Amino acid sequence: MEWDYDGPCMKTAVPGPRSMERLKQLGEIQNVDAINFFCNYEESRGNYLVDVDGNRMLDVYTQISSIPIGYNHPALHKLMADPNNLSTFVNRPALGILPPGNFADKLAESLLSVAPSGMTRVQTMACGSCSNENAYKLIPEIMWYRGCLATTHSKAIHKLDIPSLDWPIAPFPRLQYPLEEFTRDNAAEEARCLEEVEDLIMQWRQKGRPVAGIVVEPIQAEGGDNHASADFFKSLRNIARKHGCAFHVDEVQTGGGCTGKFWAHEHWGSDDPADIVSFSKKLLTGGYYHKTDLQGYRIFNTWMGDPSKNLFLVEVLNVIRRENLLEEVTRSGKALLQGLYALQEQYPGLLSRARGQGTFCAIDIRDDPTRSKILLKARDKGVLMGGCGERSIRFRPALIFKEYHVALFLNIFNDVLAEFK
Amino acid sequence: MEWDYDGPCMKTAVPGPRSMERLKQLGEIQNVDAINFFCNYEESRGNYLVDVDGNRMLDVYTQISSIPIGYNHPALHKLMADPNNLSTFVNRPALGILPPGNFADKLAESLLSVAPSGMTRVQTMACGSCSNENAYKLIPEIMWYRGCLATTHSKAIHKLDIPSLDWPIAPFPRLQYPLEEFTRDNAAEEARCLEEVEDLIMQWRQKGRPVAGIVVEPIQAEGGDNHASADFFKSLRNIARKHGCAFHVDEVQTGGGCTGKFWAHEHWGSDDPADIVSFSKKLLTGGYYHKTDLQGYRIFNTWMGDPSKNLFLVEVLNVIRRENLLEEVTRSGKALLQGLYALQEQYPGLLSRARGQGTFCAIDIRDDPTRSKILLKARDKGVLMGGCGERSIRFRPALIFKEYHVALFLNIFNDVLAEFK
Repeated sequence: MEWDYDGPCMKTAVPGPRSMERLKQLGEIQNVDAINFFCNYEESRGNYLVDVDGNRMLDVYTQISSIPIGYNHPALHKLMADPNNLSTFVNRPALGILPPGNFADKLAESLLSVAPSGMTRVQTMACGSCSNENAYKLIPEIMWYRGCLATTHSKAIHKLDIPSLDWPIAPFPRLQYPLEEFTRDNAAEEARCLEEVEDLIMQWRQKGRPVAGIVVEPIQAEGGDNHASADFFKSLRNIARKHGCAFHVDEVQTGGGCTGKFWAHEHWGSDDPADIVSFSKKLLTGGYYHKTDLQGYRIFNTWMGDPSKNLFLVEVLNVIRRENLLEEVTRSGKALLQGLYALQEQYPGLLSRARGQGTFCAIDIRDDPTRSKILLKARDKGVLMGGCGERSIRFRPALIFKEYHVALFLNIFNDVLAEFK
Repeated sequence: MEWDYDGPCMKTAVPGPRSMERLKQLGEIQNVDAINFFCNYEESRGNYLVDVDGNRMLDVYTQISSIPIGYNHPALHKLMADPNNLSTFVNRPALGILPPGNFADKLAESLLSVAPSGMTRVQTMACGSCSNENAYKLIPEIMWYRGCLATTHSKAIHKLDIPSLDWPIAPFPRLQYPLEEFTRDNAAEEARCLEEVEDLIMQWRQKGRPVAGIVVEPIQAEGGDNHASADFFKSLRNIARKHGCAFHVDEVQTGGGCTGKFWAHEHWGSDDPADIVSFSKKLLTGGYYHKTDLQGYRIFNTWMGDPSKNLFLVEVLNVIRRENLLEEVTRSGKALLQGLYALQEQYPGLLSRARGQGTFCAIDIRDDPTRSKILLKARDKGVLMGGCGERSIRFRPALIFKEYHVALFLNIFNDVLAEFK
């Protein structure tokens, strides 16, 4: 990867003076509470994000997990240099009424070439939330007057005062890590959750509002990177089948290869894992796959996706195959998780619950204030990570995050943690 | 406009054999019920959309009103040829946390340069429905447990079985056209609707769920291109102010110049027209403007727009200014509406209620089946239009639709109508 940089390089604290200036400027226009710093995307490359103050950081968060093969990958620039592709950028169609002639071919080359098992149909959408919301509409038999059972949740603050749909919410298993060491306890916790799912389905049926669908993430991401076993998901899928509920797997965050398989649900080893699989982020466009018997005649908006994102996705998938990136992710993920295990042994009061699949890893920090300090300290040393849940740090590197990036990261992370002993 | 074609050119019926082939192919992948035909966007230019069978149609619908300056405008291709712009396409950021260094500048050059009166803040969103939904979240004081009053509605079929938010819906005035001829009746109808709005506000207050906001389109578009007077909107805005409701003007379809002003609400001649203005379509990105005192700390998702669309928008606005396109629209719109008036006099049993502002025009057809036949017949003669409401045809040309395009269109439309006398 000669186009990648060879390490972080820090010139100022982050955000530096130029970022601060721009923060003030943007603050006049919109809310900037969540902004970390301002970026120089032109100079960013591979696993390294460069900011406007010239700081170069190893990016283990990649725009909330949405940059699949790193910054400014040559394959994507090559695509832009081909004059045949330009019209796709310049003329954005209303895909639901007037698709480009090559639309089915491009879907076949991109999204369908990685379709989950049993899924033959795919619909694109402009963003992740549209993908999930429109996917819900697929669930037949006036689902909205029935219920939809979710085992997922997002950051509470974004939901504040927003009326949740009137859904039963089942608990997601709260497991102990490493999973291998707590198989018995974890199996009991998963059994408890599955029992509650069936109870809820029964209760809602008795209320006259039978549950029409179950939505679940293969790894509950925003909720704090909570994992569950393949058996749990297969049982949940069976419960759905038994009660005539559609089974919707939300792979918005887990899809695209970061778990070492293209879809996280492939780890379950099931031939019929789902009725609907939604995606976004690393897939560059939102959307959902579904089985043939779920037909979405009600789905309609102006754009319904963006064919220029499919063009990029074709190249991303080519790179993933050509460079065996799923194997790389598996290898890097193992090294990362082993490294996290070692660190939590070294800092037992500070770190706990290291967990992960592929490079989709997380670790818990003593408390939320310490987590914030660690994230800032690491950033000043040139490593960019993100938080999730109440006190977790999540790792969401690009698929080109190699073992030597893991080593580099662990060194810096170790230095940071040493200051919090 | 030397890059535009000089007229329609039809080779087959539409959809032609190549479109039919692709329809079958795409039908294996997704629902194709709404698809008209397949396009050759490379060969499309200016006001003309070319399909995969080589048919070239005068496009008076422009991808549901979302192509502002025609197909393949040289200014947009020039932008793509500048290597400095490529990284913006290749590296899509999570704008809410890591915006590009030039983000505020690009917002200033694009969206803020056309900000509605009194609006200093703007937030981008990936699509139109996200724009409206997130804009609603701006309305303060736990709006979701209060009500929101809408005088808009979308196609019933897309809402079927979807729980509408528990909002009071007020009637939009049902006026008689031409507006100038029915001023007295129309004023009475508008007064009736305004009275009902105040009644609803009172009723909901008594229910303990006071109305927190009013949402209205300057021209009720999907509902059938229903117009109302400037006085109506100013009174509605006053009612909102009086009762402490936020006033949200939905310019998703009307914004971007097609009414002869950049925002349709500018026709009201008010200094303080709104608290929130949402947009999408011709603006190439979704989003909303709002006043300083409405702060949206709860708005968050991964992408929150797409900076590459802002790049295009800067050029679109340059073209609009350089080529005085708002004046062109006013001129073409006048010619179009005069032409429609003449046609409805000529075909009194067939056409009625010609109406419009700028080129944002519509006319009613005898009945829905006749409308469908007229749309198909016109398409076969090389003119592409769209329907809205129960039996209206709507005109949504690009801003580069000149008087000679109007003449060309009216000729063909006349030929079509003659067959339905």
